Amino acid sequence: MQSSADIRPGEIAVDHEPTHDASVTFIGRIRTPYRERAVCPRQGKPDGPLCQIEVDSIWRPALSGLQPGQTIQVLYWMHLARRDLLVQNPRMDGDLNGTFSLRSPVRPNPIASSIVEIHAIADGVLSVRGLDCVDGTPLLDIKPVHCPKA
Amino acid sequence: MQSSADIRPGEIAVDHEPTHDASVTFIGRIRTPYRERAVCPRQGKPDGPLCQIEVDSIWRPALSGLQPGQTIQVLYWMHLARRDLLVQNPRMDGDLNGTFSLRSPVRPNPIASSIVEIHAIADGVLSVRGLDCVDGTPLLDIKPVHCPKA
Repeated sequence: MQSSADIRPGEIAVDHEPTHDASVTFIGRIRTPYRERAVCPRQGKPDGPLCQIEVDSIWRPALSGLQPGQTIQVLYWMHLARRDLLVQNPRMDGDLNGTFSLRSPVRPNPIASSIVEIHAIADGVLSVRGLDCVDGTPLLDIKPVHCPKA
Repeated sequence: MQSSADIRPGEIAVDHEPTHDASVTFIGRIRTPYRERAVCPRQGKPDGPLCQIEVDSIWRPALSGLQPGQTIQVLYWMHLARRDLLVQNPRMDGDLNGTFSLRSPVRPNPIASSIVEIHAIADGVLSVRGLDCVDGTPLLDIKPVHCPKA
């Protein structure tokens, strides 16, 4: 996955071993209809398919106060993405972009952030529409969104 | 910092050692006027003071394509926050909330997300207004925001 053979024309990888500066704890996982990366949409849509955010049992008390209809921010770990690209050619069309000017999953810390509305919540599972990740993606965090730009 | 002596009335901590499921790499740091947590604002404001996002030299090529005036999402690691609270009493007023219904830095993965506009960018430093974190907070990621809800 980190092999330079996977690099597209014009892409630049950093020549550096990843540092381990802090650890993340997976608190659950995301269920989507996408069984592999090749079929994931480029970005989520509010009218996309229903997905489930499964929160592990020890963390479920932390869901208290969340309600259907509420808008939340979901952070998740794009575990299949390489982490060493500085410049990317995301559409393979020669249009090169710095990693920080893209929302590609390929980045030094593969943390995705999506804003979704809670459709239903029961037994530690939040149903939402239109997440973009592969089925089984590790969950990092759920936060309320207080205003459109939060 | 993880001592139960720091718990406020009504708060509930999880009895569990943090797991190390993946590692994050600090890619720079955030400079703010706030030298300690006690003086940080509860949330950032677009008209707040100028702050600097310093990107480490090896990651600077990944900034290519970002411009002043552009709106970005910044992810950073709240390194001083405890990670074990399930239920919090954030204003010490007895109003208890589950961690995932709050944007408090205290959460299993202390990843903060803020939306700001680039004021200036030079030599790997982005100037922005109104971040809320303590000076020296580790930087995780910068992403463009394509629409108000991204």
